[in-house]
Parts: sequence; C-alpha cells; structure tokens
Amino acid sequence: MPLQWIPAAEGDRLQDVDTPALILDLERFDANVARMREAAAHLNVRVRPHAKSHKCPEIARRQIAAGGVGICCQKIGEADVFLSRGIGDVLITNEAVGDRKLRRLAQLARRYPDARLGMCVDDLNVVEALAALCASEDGRLDVYVELDVGQNRCGVATAAEVVALARAIVRCPNFTFMGLHGYAGSAQHRRGVSERRDAIVAAARAADEARAALAAAGLRCDVITGGGTGTFVYEAGSRIYNEVQPGSYVLMDTDYACNEQDAGAPRFEHALFVLASVMSMRGDRATLDAGLKAFSTDSGLPAPAFSGWQVTNISDEHTVLHRTGAGPSLTLGDKVLLIPSHCDPTVNLHDWFVAVRQGTVEALWPVEARGAVF
Amino acid sequence: MPLQWIPAAEGDRLQDVDTPALILDLERFDANVARMREAAAHLNVRVRPHAKSHKCPEIARRQIAAGGVGICCQKIGEADVFLSRGIGDVLITNEAVGDRKLRRLAQLARRYPDARLGMCVDDLNVVEALAALCASEDGRLDVYVELDVGQNRCGVATAAEVVALARAIVRCPNFTFMGLHGYAGSAQHRRGVSERRDAIVAAARAADEARAALAAAGLRCDVITGGGTGTFVYEAGSRIYNEVQPGSYVLMDTDYACNEQDAGAPRFEHALFVLASVMSMRGDRATLDAGLKAFSTDSGLPAPAFSGWQVTNISDEHTVLHRTGAGPSLTLGDKVLLIPSHCDPTVNLHDWFVAVRQGTVEALWPVEARGAVF
Repeated sequence: MPLQWIPAAEGDRLQDVDTPALILDLERFDANVARMREAAAHLNVRVRPHAKSHKCPEIARRQIAAGGVGICCQKIGEADVFLSRGIGDVLITNEAVGDRKLRRLAQLARRYPDARLGMCVDDLNVVEALAALCASEDGRLDVYVELDVGQNRCGVATAAEVVALARAIVRCPNFTFMGLHGYAGSAQHRRGVSERRDAIVAAARAADEARAALAAAGLRCDVITGGGTGTFVYEAGSRIYNEVQPGSYVLMDTDYACNEQDAGAPRFEHALFVLASVMSMRGDRATLDAGLKAFSTDSGLPAPAFSGWQVTNISDEHTVLHRTGAGPSLTLGDKVLLIPSHCDPTVNLHDWFVAVRQGTVEALWPVEARGAVF
Repeated sequence: MPLQWIPAAEGDRLQDVDTPALILDLERFDANVARMREAAAHLNVRVRPHAKSHKCPEIARRQIAAGGVGICCQKIGEADVFLSRGIGDVLITNEAVGDRKLRRLAQLARRYPDARLGMCVDDLNVVEALAALCASEDGRLDVYVELDVGQNRCGVATAAEVVALARAIVRCPNFTFMGLHGYAGSAQHRRGVSERRDAIVAAARAADEARAALAAAGLRCDVITGGGTGTFVYEAGSRIYNEVQPGSYVLMDTDYACNEQDAGAPRFEHALFVLASVMSMRGDRATLDAGLKAFSTDSGLPAPAFSGWQVTNISDEHTVLHRTGAGPSLTLGDKVLLIPSHCDPTVNLHDWFVAVRQGTVEALWPVEARGAVF
C-alpha cells in the first residue's frame, strides 16, 4: 500500500509544510466568518453558507457556530459527507435526474431522519419519480422549486411553471414544499457594483412574482433563497429573499477581488493560498512545484502573494515566475504563497486544508467532499 | 461515514453509469496501446509511458505488457502508488527539493529494493542532500541530470553543468548515474509538424553536446530520455534520444487533436470522455451535470462527442450546450459524452475510470494516484 501522506503536522512552521499545499490563514478565515455574522445581523437575513466552495465539514461547523442556519451543497455525494459529519440542515441547490441519483437521494434522506435535507426541482417528471422513490425508501425531503433568475442554466422561467411544480410537490406526503431557489450565478462576478445590484433587482422581482402566484394559488412560500458572495447584500436588501447562500467569502480568490467593492458590503480577505516550493532558480526565473493539479486556471492565473514577481507559465506540475520589479529575492527551496484565481475548483484538487495561524500549523482539516461529483 | 460511491458496476450499460463519470473507451485504448507498440518497434526506441496522464496502475500494467520499459511519473507520491502496485521501474521526470521530500524519496527507494526508482536533478546541493539521505536511509536511486532543451523551466542549460552534476552523482555510492532527461514540453502542442520537428532537432543537438561532454569527461551516458505524444517520433528519429516518454497517447484530448498530424506518426484516437446527464432542457439549451470539477479548461472548453451542439458556458458543476446545427435531439436524463481539452488535469479530478467496451462497462479502474501532488 502507498503511505498516506499528510503535508504537515500540528505545530509545524509554515515553511516546513510540504508543497504544494492548500493553506488556510485562520486569522483571515475567522475575520471573514465574523464579518458574515455581522452582515447577516445587520441585514436581518438567514445565511446558509455554500459548502461547495470548501467541501470541509470543519469549516461548515464553524460557519454554523457563527449563525449559519445550515449549509448548501451542489451534489448528493457532498450532502452525504456533510450529513455524516453531523451537519443537520443541508440544502442541495441543484437538480438531479435519473433513477440512480434519485434513489441515492431518497436513501440518504432515510439514513438521516433527524436532519433536514433539501433538494431543488425544475421538472414535473422528476418530482413524480423522486416522490415515488421517497415513498418506497421512506425518506423525507424539503423541496424547493428552482426559478431561473437570469442564470440561463437550470430552473423554470415562469411563475405558472413554479405554481405547477409546487402543486405537485405539496401532493407528495414525503415532501415539504419550502419555497424558491433563485441563484443569479453570473451576476456574482460582474465587476461593477451597479451591474451586480441591477441583476439582483431583476432576480428579486422575478422571485416576488412567483411568490405572488403561489399565494394566489393558496400555496405558502416560506423561503426564498439564493445569492453568493458577490451579491448577497442585494438579495438580503431586496426584502424578497430571506436567505442567502454565500460560499467563497470564507476563502476568497483573485476573481472576486477584481469586483468593485460596494461600500455597504463587508470586505472579505484572501484566506486561501497554495504554498509552493522554488524547485529551480535560474537568474530571474523561479520554477515552483505547483501547477494545474494544484490550482484551477478557469478564472485566470494564480497571483503571487508578494510583489515583484509574475506568473509567466503554468503546466501540469509547475508554475514559472519571472521577476518584474522590486520584491523578495527567491532561492532554491524557498516556499512561497500563491492566491488562487477561483477557490472552488482549486480546493477540489486537494485532500487537506493546512490551517495556519501566525505562521504555525494549528490544524489539518480534510477536504472530505473533494471529488464528490456524483 | 459517507457511503463509498462507485459510478457503475461491471456489466452496466453506458447509459446506466452515474454522471459525471470518466469513461475510457477500451477499444480505442487498446488500439492506442497497440499503435505505440508498433511505433516503438518501427522506431527501435524504448518507450517509458508517462503515467502522470492517467495515474492508474492498471493502465501502467497494460502499457508495460505492450513493451513499455517502465513508467514515468512527476511526483514522489505518484511513484509510491505505482511501486506499491507492482510497477518495477519508475522514473520521476522531475526534481524535488527540501528535506521532507528528499527523505521521503530515500525511504521510498529503501521500501522497494528490487525496483528501479529514478529521479532527476539539476542542482549540486540537492545531489549532496539526497545522497546523504539515501546513505542514511539505505535507499538506492537511478539519477538523471535534467537538461533544459527549450522548456525554460527546470534543468541545467549547459554541457559543463551536466558534467559537474554527473561527476557529483557518480561519487555517491547509493546512486547510479543513468544519463540525461531532456523534455521539450512546450513543443508537444505546437500545431505544425515542422515546428515540432525543428524544436526536437534543437533539443537533440543540445543532448548530443551534453553526451559528448560527458564522454570527454570519461562518464557513461546510457540513457537519453524525453519526448511526449506530440514529438516522440522526432526524439526517436534523432538517434540521440534512446527512450521516449509519451503519456497522453493512450487517452488523447482535443488539444492534441488540434496538432497537424505527421503522416509518419501513429494516429491516436480519443479514448477518454466525460459522461454527463442532461439535467435541464429548455428549447435549444441543454444543461449538463458536469462542470469545472469534472474536467479542466486550461486548454479550452470540452467538446461534445456529437454534432450539432456547442458548449456555451461552464461553471463549477454545470455545462450549458446550445444547438448550432443538425445533430441528435436531447431530452432530460439523456447521457452524453464530452471530449476533454486536456487529459491529465481532467483525469486528476476523478476517482474512477469506467472502462467501457461496446457500450458495456467492462471494469472500474481506480485513479489511485489522483491528487498525489506531493
């Protein structure tokens, strides 16, 4: 058997951590968690942090300890991990299709009868298939209708479809119809404050129309949930959404940092880094031992967390930096921090968060839902 | 504990495999393996397939059964996996730095005294540190000097540096100096045949100069190894390289498929796919349940393996297709195949290869070295 390899031990100094490692700066992480708690209190909104960003039960526990009402995730397999680790309220902000997945979901609901497990739907046939499986497997689910609020991906587009789905849901004895899920995903990364705000004004209007149609049909809609790190203050401010789902705020990345900051929104700090070693040094060129298998590049190249150096090339296992100005000298064996461009798919490449406080490893937290694509 | 989830069972039909799943088409895989065997015989070159592409001991076994002299990998953790699964000749085509990594390597060498384990170096201090650790840990290594043949990443640039390193290596009783590693990585993806060939002519010239310098210093250089799927016919044809390291050829991806095909080189077929389900269908828009956590996009978007549809958006867990012309109709629940743009980082996202022959699952092969970044 290959040896299990853990990149550090508690008490190690940061510079002794094996590389490439996913580093969580605990001071910044704690500050981000506290800022979200304050924001939620100020905005008077329920926060259900999205765990697809971190995939880590320990982080979910801390988010819930800071007032989170539960967590979101995207996959049934992620829900399985979080439920098994004692997270008692999990909403899958996504649909599923096919007997294999729906049966797994119904069985998961049965295995955790004391937990709340929620799922989104946007199709009547899926509602019926899932209801039959929940009945035969004896599983209970919270069910939300997904409303397409501009993402053009999943969800129904009209209030009439929402009502038809809700009627089907309330007929199923194993389902509790909870309300609407409406996530304006692409709005999270629009750079301008007004662009983001305008997108959420439109999303909230669509959600409000659907809620009115439900009310006219005699159907309660207790929850309207959505919003991410880039827009949650606008969903909360709409007074139409009563629950928000920010995920990246605990970690942050260079893509979110490119957004124009809203003076009325909390400012989150980079708490997520990839630690890499300088494995080759030639003149003004430093080659690091971290590449495409240590961070994703879908939202751009990672950025050095120090001045004077720039990423000029990335391959599967290497990143090449070149000196571009004043900054630290690098020598063979030095360990340096990079800031990922997109936290979610970067975290998904790693098995461990190395949680560091003031340069010392405080804990190792497994990324337990890593690879939970099913 | 969360349930272990395996996306299929032997005998399942392709359309019953859970999604998103990594699919290996065994007919095409077998054909690719056979074509490499024929090419190696024709070119009279040793083939040491690169296992960083597939990270799967079962695939390595089949490559060796088809004449491979061993495998390459990039990380000590990958080598640990392959050695533990009985692969008896592993070359790490990369350097390592730092006590933690070098000690792990020395201990790994001791754990497999009957295997050959090779490593590259490009720094005298590392040679000395690794030699001391191999002596104290009682581990034996094959050691190669990496020559920078145009990749501008790791490796030494001059024949004089090669000789200095080789002299240091041969002084170490736990090392066997094997020769040179010279990999022109960026040349693999140059589109034109002549661009790729010219890059390897230059690489082979540099390797030949280094070999001559070693000979002048009285040092044997038994192996000159390098080359990937895009260029290995040129390394082999140089008569200077005597070992090549193609990796992607067993799987292939859209990026390699964009290369101009050399009439004298074997033609490899796409054997790697991601199977995804249509989870939402609205008019000419199909949303699939596979996103950035199921394939990498560093080399572009994945391509549908069928006509008439185009990828228009990818997010963490979703891919949106739009109809662009004549092609199959898609309905909710349909399962479709996508061709990844870059096989290596895509495979690294998955825990299983679902190996399929003529539409039926023949085997499930774990991607055992997935995430072996250390």
